[in-house]
Amino acid sequence: MATMTETPHLTLDLDAPGVRLGHLVVPKGHDYEALSLPVFSINRGEGPRLLITGGIHGDELEGPIVARRLMDWLPEAQTCGRVIIAPEINPLAVQAWTRNTPVDGKNLNRVFPGRADGSVSERIADAVSRILLPMADTVFDLHSFGPTWDFPPAVVTHPIADADLMAKTVWMAEAFKMPVTLIWEHPDRVGMLDTWAHSQGKVIAVTELGGGGVGAEALAIYEDGVRNGLIALGLVKGRSAAPTFRHQNSSRTLKKLLSDELRSPARGIFDPRSSVLDEVKQGDLIGVLHPMDSLSAGSIEIYAPSTSIVCGMRCGGYVEAGENIFYLAGTHKSSVASSE
Amino acid sequence: MATMTETPHLTLDLDAPGVRLGHLVVPKGHDYEALSLPVFSINRGEGPRLLITGGIHGDELEGPIVARRLMDWLPEAQTCGRVIIAPEINPLAVQAWTRNTPVDGKNLNRVFPGRADGSVSERIADAVSRILLPMADTVFDLHSFGPTWDFPPAVVTHPIADADLMAKTVWMAEAFKMPVTLIWEHPDRVGMLDTWAHSQGKVIAVTELGGGGVGAEALAIYEDGVRNGLIALGLVKGRSAAPTFRHQNSSRTLKKLLSDELRSPARGIFDPRSSVLDEVKQGDLIGVLHPMDSLSAGSIEIYAPSTSIVCGMRCGGYVEAGENIFYLAGTHKSSVASSE
Repeated sequence: MATMTETPHLTLDLDAPGVRLGHLVVPKGHDYEALSLPVFSINRGEGPRLLITGGIHGDELEGPIVARRLMDWLPEAQTCGRVIIAPEINPLAVQAWTRNTPVDGKNLNRVFPGRADGSVSERIADAVSRILLPMADTVFDLHSFGPTWDFPPAVVTHPIADADLMAKTVWMAEAFKMPVTLIWEHPDRVGMLDTWAHSQGKVIAVTELGGGGVGAEALAIYEDGVRNGLIALGLVKGRSAAPTFRHQNSSRTLKKLLSDELRSPARGIFDPRSSVLDEVKQGDLIGVLHPMDSLSAGSIEIYAPSTSIVCGMRCGGYVEAGENIFYLAGTHKSSVASSE
Repeated sequence: MATMTETPHLTLDLDAPGVRLGHLVVPKGHDYEALSLPVFSINRGEGPRLLITGGIHGDELEGPIVARRLMDWLPEAQTCGRVIIAPEINPLAVQAWTRNTPVDGKNLNRVFPGRADGSVSERIADAVSRILLPMADTVFDLHSFGPTWDFPPAVVTHPIADADLMAKTVWMAEAFKMPVTLIWEHPDRVGMLDTWAHSQGKVIAVTELGGGGVGAEALAIYEDGVRNGLIALGLVKGRSAAPTFRHQNSSRTLKKLLSDELRSPARGIFDPRSSVLDEVKQGDLIGVLHPMDSLSAGSIEIYAPSTSIVCGMRCGGYVEAGENIFYLAGTHKSSVASSE
């Protein structure tokens, strides 16, 4: 019996009008059987074409939850265009509640555009890149910070060399009206879905839907934010909401440089003395690292190196020396004229 | 060369006056080398004798953090008696950020009083039971609910058959003035540290210092609660604080029965629609379970089976069918006259 080389394919017709449910089939490979990624599609004819992905990292469940919530009301609310939702593109990692894919140990968000003959993460990336991404002009990739980091509700973009695409991307990100829009200077961008989407000329809004535990109040903010994005694109009618987060009702655009990452001075347990969105001054005590192997080592106080805003902070996990424990940020002075 | 059978021992003298630092040495066994558990001791002479333990489960870091914070101010604040603090009694689990000990896969809080010739968890339990526990009349064992559950700041006790010990235990628990004191009916109590401590006639306050991510605001509440416990025992002078949690400034005593545990109707992702300490009525929507393997399965709504208070709720992790997703609770009508 000959082994046919399967190619990734859909079990639903995205061109059919109305609501469709099905799967994106990722073929089996040398390391794992075929996977069926759930896919939801609404085709309301002419208009914007949007792809929403969730669950690229398995310990970021806010994205799949918000994506499932959208499916409840989008059939009533969407007036034009096409929306494809793939709420859980890495089911192996989601089921294991791990960032990386357990079968091959790879970070799915570092292997785009993937390889048809690669390991399972690379085959997922290949299927998403070849089958779903070409169907869309705009992508919402729903991340969060996972259980070991606290983070405010945010939409993030990395700096993009193409000024026009950067302007469109910042406009899209700010349209979510999340408490934070963040320009994120990142040391390691090869293989990210957003890097690949940029190379294809697409606008991609990467959300960071908080961190730590998943809770009802925060999920309502995330859902509002994604709905604001759909309204801005014209897919849904209505007025955008400005969510209240930690008693603040404002959105701001921040910038995190590589130098805004603070690393742990030792191994031990991190004790936060500040909270996300705190505005801290140079010299403020913002955390303590407790070495635990011996108490005579003493605790190490961590001070803000400059006046800045606490954007992300460890909230779980044992910390090794040199691991990031803080992402600070500053106010971003946009060089882009507001296009709203 | 003869192999000496080592016995657990301390590298510090608990009878020496003042502050001492050292280790509790857990001998090596067939599965792992010797462990040195950090120990801090203050001896201020006559008075109550208190043991504080943290890190019995490795993914509950609030306990070790609060224990380390106590060490900063207790030398100035403690006026009499003895306090022994072992902030991290399961370093293998803490370093791995896992509930169970990674070497033997055991839950340290199910193997008390342990075995000298057992696996590493059993050897830790044996060392704590034989060396530390006899030094104390009262124990504070600092738990929290870990990254996959949300929970309010609480002190918990299981029902105790001995009415006098139960009354003393509830008095001690309520003295923390945490938002919740909880009488917890538990199906699986063999081998717990508190069960063993009860059998030795000791009063033990088991804290549950929240759940989900570790944050500065919540840690301040936990630290206040433990300080209130020290004040009630007479070890520290001062007025107890009544911490504000979720805009409420009150403490209440609740009771969770075995029938107050709600299990997931399917495997998938849990979407909370209520928050801890919400008072819910029979029939209220409190959560949704999203099966993810196929979207055509549809989401399953979860309703409150009776009027109750949401005490604990999943906030992370993929959920299997039959796993607990809610701990509800009702108001406890104390049969014990207030002894405060």
